[in-house]
Amino acid sequence: MPEAARIHPNRMKLYEKLADEITEAVRRGVFAAGERVASVRQASQQHGVSIKTVLHAYALLESRGIVESRPQSGYFVRDAAARALAPAPAAARAGRKSAPPPVPATVDVSRLVLSTLRSIRAHDAVPFGSPYPDPSLFPWRRINQYANAIARRHASWNLIDDLPPGNPELIRQIARRYAENGLPVDPGEIVITLGATEAINLSLQAVAKPGDTVAVESPTYYAMLHAIERLGMRAIEVATHPVDGIDIDALAKAIARQKIAACMVMPNFQNPLGFCMSDERKRQLVELLAAHEIPAIENDVYQELYFGDTRPSTLKTFDTQGLVLHCASFSKSLTASYRIGWALPGRYRAQVEKLKFLNTLTTPSVPQIAVADYLRQDGYDRHLRHLRRVYRQQASIMSALVLRFFPVGTRVSTPRGGYVLWVELPVAIDSMRLYQAALERGITVGPGMMFSTRNDFRHFIRLNYSYPWTAQAEAALKTLGELATAMA
Amino acid sequence: MPEAARIHPNRMKLYEKLADEITEAVRRGVFAAGERVASVRQASQQHGVSIKTVLHAYALLESRGIVESRPQSGYFVRDAAARALAPAPAAARAGRKSAPPPVPATVDVSRLVLSTLRSIRAHDAVPFGSPYPDPSLFPWRRINQYANAIARRHASWNLIDDLPPGNPELIRQIARRYAENGLPVDPGEIVITLGATEAINLSLQAVAKPGDTVAVESPTYYAMLHAIERLGMRAIEVATHPVDGIDIDALAKAIARQKIAACMVMPNFQNPLGFCMSDERKRQLVELLAAHEIPAIENDVYQELYFGDTRPSTLKTFDTQGLVLHCASFSKSLTASYRIGWALPGRYRAQVEKLKFLNTLTTPSVPQIAVADYLRQDGYDRHLRHLRRVYRQQASIMSALVLRFFPVGTRVSTPRGGYVLWVELPVAIDSMRLYQAALERGITVGPGMMFSTRNDFRHFIRLNYSYPWTAQAEAALKTLGELATAMA
Repeated sequence: MPEAARIHPNRMKLYEKLADEITEAVRRGVFAAGERVASVRQASQQHGVSIKTVLHAYALLESRGIVESRPQSGYFVRDAAARALAPAPAAARAGRKSAPPPVPATVDVSRLVLSTLRSIRAHDAVPFGSPYPDPSLFPWRRINQYANAIARRHASWNLIDDLPPGNPELIRQIARRYAENGLPVDPGEIVITLGATEAINLSLQAVAKPGDTVAVESPTYYAMLHAIERLGMRAIEVATHPVDGIDIDALAKAIARQKIAACMVMPNFQNPLGFCMSDERKRQLVELLAAHEIPAIENDVYQELYFGDTRPSTLKTFDTQGLVLHCASFSKSLTASYRIGWALPGRYRAQVEKLKFLNTLTTPSVPQIAVADYLRQDGYDRHLRHLRRVYRQQASIMSALVLRFFPVGTRVSTPRGGYVLWVELPVAIDSMRLYQAALERGITVGPGMMFSTRNDFRHFIRLNYSYPWTAQAEAALKTLGELATAMA
Repeated sequence: MPEAARIHPNRMKLYEKLADEITEAVRRGVFAAGERVASVRQASQQHGVSIKTVLHAYALLESRGIVESRPQSGYFVRDAAARALAPAPAAARAGRKSAPPPVPATVDVSRLVLSTLRSIRAHDAVPFGSPYPDPSLFPWRRINQYANAIARRHASWNLIDDLPPGNPELIRQIARRYAENGLPVDPGEIVITLGATEAINLSLQAVAKPGDTVAVESPTYYAMLHAIERLGMRAIEVATHPVDGIDIDALAKAIARQKIAACMVMPNFQNPLGFCMSDERKRQLVELLAAHEIPAIENDVYQELYFGDTRPSTLKTFDTQGLVLHCASFSKSLTASYRIGWALPGRYRAQVEKLKFLNTLTTPSVPQIAVADYLRQDGYDRHLRHLRRVYRQQASIMSALVLRFFPVGTRVSTPRGGYVLWVELPVAIDSMRLYQAALERGITVGPGMMFSTRNDFRHFIRLNYSYPWTAQAEAALKTLGELATAMA
């Protein structure tokens, strides 16, 4: 691959790639603090790149504070870098369980979210504030080739063939994938939707009505709040632990106190906290809700983006009552612009299918079949392995550098999957002010208030680490840190 | 064009095309009753087709009862055919104004509609019951070529570029088209949606809330009823005249009697009645609603399918208060499977745009840009002229043959545009029984009950005439007529 200037992550400059690999090696303890890394010549041979590329990479690593050069001796891992890149001490990680007041609230966060998204679109900077994964990591050309081939095979297309529940082959492929991951599902339960957004909307509409109260995590992913807002329901935020997930005792208390029509959660790689609930806690949650006949809407859009060895279980895994409405999509792992999602609505299947028909009539078939063809014929697993590796690596780089650049007292989440980092700033910092100041410098962040109905999390920001870790990204993060420090 | 066996209307067999042209000429009085049509040799020269094709065409016309051959003399227009094809007498056309009771009702028609659509999909017969136009008349390949070219120009696609209100170039093209048709609109008002279905849903949700009462035509297009059903509202059906449209006095009375939150109408080529409201009546309707501050949701999906010389006006044309929410799509005129619709929501624009974001996040960009490219570069007007000619011709053929095949007392609508015929059978006939009996013979019809909240219109059916008028279609219509006759 020529070393031409490149922008996208899967086309990073070679020296950036090399620098990232060495960073990752330091993080993993391959090179310990004070240890010498490979010489320029060795690295050139090991990685099959030019001397110039290695020199570039080492210069970048120096600027990142990961290695230092000692004259006549070579490059050595800095003590501070090894500490920063190693799993952070408890104080700088995790943080406390949230403590929202036990009062349902009406929801109106979409204005803030939409204006944030617009500002991201309007700016050309590194989009730390984006909720979407870097699309350049997705196999856009392959999927489009399938779509084009399908379209060409037909002289015309009858809308009537697109009626819910969706294309049978895609449904089969989705069911196969769950089965391969040890989570058998009934293909007959699947309803194809326009992204997980529609799946979540329809699921909520199937189980609750305007004015009802819905329990959510705190902080909660605003897509959940949007669904509640859209239907004129009320949200009650439930204390949520940054590692363990929703507090089941707190939820039990909320249920005892008032009628809860549904519970919306994201047990795997929650956005923004990044936790993955344990099997035991998932089971407890399902059992608590089942005991009160409360449907659970499970947003599992990051299901393929795990950093561990296997795909985690879902609430669905532990559901014996058909009370879990499981929602997912390909938007975070394969193609966002095709808008293919699905619901596994349990006992509410008929209602969800009918609502799908009423809401948008059909999900276009060609994109459905293109995804099915890709799943059947192409290297989805290989693609996902690459995606997970990149995200995992970029998560650790960003975590380390946030702790380095941001003011004392800043804490970061430890994402177990996905592509967002939750950053707790010193309480004095108003993240809306930080958002504005950053925007003026062409940098976006996700203000914490988007994740609450009650303007909570004012000193939190969400950062997206799916984009390539370039010098520009690093400079932007440094600027952010300086802005935050000035506000602290 | 070779005379190979062809199925689709724009690929009708040549002899079928010729037969249709002669039928149309008879309908228009070019050939009067008893008059001799062109000789086989003349017709062969005039139409540039083989002798064999003309013989085929004349045989088909004979079987249709339009011409008769007289030995040694040639082919003559049958008296009965000329009568049947000429504009029907008032008794067999038009029909009376509907007279629904003035009571709002909850809505639950989607089950019947969905099961009808499924039965159409499951059968291979001529789909008289389909609500969708024959897709083979659409420029599927051209649109797909544009889509493929757009996809290839990009290495990836960022979802963030697809945020509402939609692709700016498509919005510009839509506004240009309205302007060319003498209906200037503000591009800044347009919100792109997933088909008119979503536009109607969002418009209704923007102006009314669950439990509210919405005024609709009687019969009304069930897409309107679906929107009402989806949001848990109630419908009040208003008397509607088969030629003049919704009865404005009856609507005024309904408004005087109860709180009406919105009025949903289809002033142009209403489905199923096919009328086109006059400018004067449109103005009166807009003024009545404005006087009571009642928003009007205008479904104008058939706007391009007029049989007259020009595109008719819309309610929007007469709206000075921003109270008209105008909804339309490309699904009936260009491509159904791309699911591109839009709303012009007047003073409710901000709400509709927000609801779009909450409902489905985005409308995929590539289909939007493909349609915009087609509109800008390709022969949309030529395509539409062809479509209108085919529909107009097939409307008159089907009307004539329904009157010929169906029992005495059957009346048909006189569609002024669109592609559906509304057929009133003798009152003794239950169209659900006819629907079932036809289904057993692989023929579908649209049962009248789909167009009412109260199981009205039991002796009505809707027939789709967009599909090619083949011998098979004709035989199917004849069978339908026989089934109806047996039930009368």
